[in-house]
Amino acid sequence: MTREPVYLVGAGPGAPDLLTVRAARVLARADALLYDRLVHPDVVALATQARVKVAVGKSPGAPKAAQEAICATLQALWQAGYDPVVRLKGGDPFVFGRGGEEAAALSAAGIPWEVVPGLSAALAAPALAHIPVTHRGVSPGVVIVSGTAAGGRLHSLAGEGQTPYTLVVLMGVARLEALVRSLIAGGKPPDTPAALLAAMAWPEARAVRAPLAELPAAARAAGMTAPATLVVGPVAALFPLPSDLRGAVDAFAPG
Amino acid sequence: MTREPVYLVGAGPGAPDLLTVRAARVLARADALLYDRLVHPDVVALATQARVKVAVGKSPGAPKAAQEAICATLQALWQAGYDPVVRLKGGDPFVFGRGGEEAAALSAAGIPWEVVPGLSAALAAPALAHIPVTHRGVSPGVVIVSGTAAGGRLHSLAGEGQTPYTLVVLMGVARLEALVRSLIAGGKPPDTPAALLAAMAWPEARAVRAPLAELPAAARAAGMTAPATLVVGPVAALFPLPSDLRGAVDAFAPG
Repeated sequence: MTREPVYLVGAGPGAPDLLTVRAARVLARADALLYDRLVHPDVVALATQARVKVAVGKSPGAPKAAQEAICATLQALWQAGYDPVVRLKGGDPFVFGRGGEEAAALSAAGIPWEVVPGLSAALAAPALAHIPVTHRGVSPGVVIVSGTAAGGRLHSLAGEGQTPYTLVVLMGVARLEALVRSLIAGGKPPDTPAALLAAMAWPEARAVRAPLAELPAAARAAGMTAPATLVVGPVAALFPLPSDLRGAVDAFAPG
Repeated sequence: MTREPVYLVGAGPGAPDLLTVRAARVLARADALLYDRLVHPDVVALATQARVKVAVGKSPGAPKAAQEAICATLQALWQAGYDPVVRLKGGDPFVFGRGGEEAAALSAAGIPWEVVPGLSAALAAPALAHIPVTHRGVSPGVVIVSGTAAGGRLHSLAGEGQTPYTLVVLMGVARLEALVRSLIAGGKPPDTPAALLAAMAWPEARAVRAPLAELPAAARAAGMTAPATLVVGPVAALFPLPSDLRGAVDAFAPG
């Protein structure tokens, strides 16, 4: 019998029904599961056949597992004979998911792998907030960057100040004020519509929308915490926020 | 009984199992379905309850339906009382899907709508080709643009020649040579790894990979046709193409 590859599976932005059908099926067959703590428990619960489940990543009171330890655990599970081994990551494994690093470690160890893509919050969070990242005559493209550079340093957005595209920033909420400052210093008009979106595919979804320069104060007043998705561009104010979004603070709301 | 909104549903990149669970469930409940001809027939077939199914978009021998006609049809289906009306689009409705225009038309007519996000080929096609669009130390972000500007004109990529991010271009294959020329003129090194990916989530998947300057000739020789996804950046050559990808032409293949 041919052995299955290690599956790098995207869990999507939260809600279990925003998983792909393929991801749900792979999870149902998982013999060993290595998953991020940020993944929705109902998604993790889909791995009903898994003989071992290992949680990694940030949790209150526990330090974040080193990437090397995660790669080593994946290899150890494979070498122990679990089949298939499934690595479940929030969003998409290949969009700021460090899935490439895990794939490289598996390749180096001679272990086959496959990717099951998932909805990245970079595109799904705006959609769920009724923000089209591209729109004819408004934005002909989208730039997706991390707010945190390698080593945890601030990723300056000054270079994106002139972009004609919608800007989506992941992992930027902890340094929102500095990020916005760098973006405005780079040329982005301070009154550009901007939105900060958190847990959009969870019941506790929250959204703060304001002109760019006012967004950090509005987000602070609303008590927004990481992880959240920042969207900057005129598309952010094209439509009203969804009416069933209870945790909304909206400077662009009519009336 | 409250009436359902019009659902703008993303069909993802092709394969029916790359649909989200939510999208599959909405399709199964559709009373009227308006879908793009490019969507996989097995996805369209999930709308088993639909009393009416209308196909729009490009087809051999038929002109593309005007966007205005699509919006008018959506409104007509709603006004005729179908509940729910489902608009099924390839990829994600809000990533070059013109879903924003359809949403705006619905809003203008006082018709409620909701988005069910889907996997955009912009991110899913690279993942299925084992290309992580972001990778630590290689690419700290991704830019997604259309190769065709409003009105069908060529969208120059000269402005992206200096981007430190992975560049993904949708709808560019018909003008690949001019796009690549503009990108190199803008400063992108001619030997930057690049890949052209077609139908990655279909059995007839094809991929051509070459240094940027050589990609148009390689794609022409391979007979690549639209729609296809162009990926430009060092990430395009991080990993071998999937071994089960039969339609692969790869200048970076080992040996």
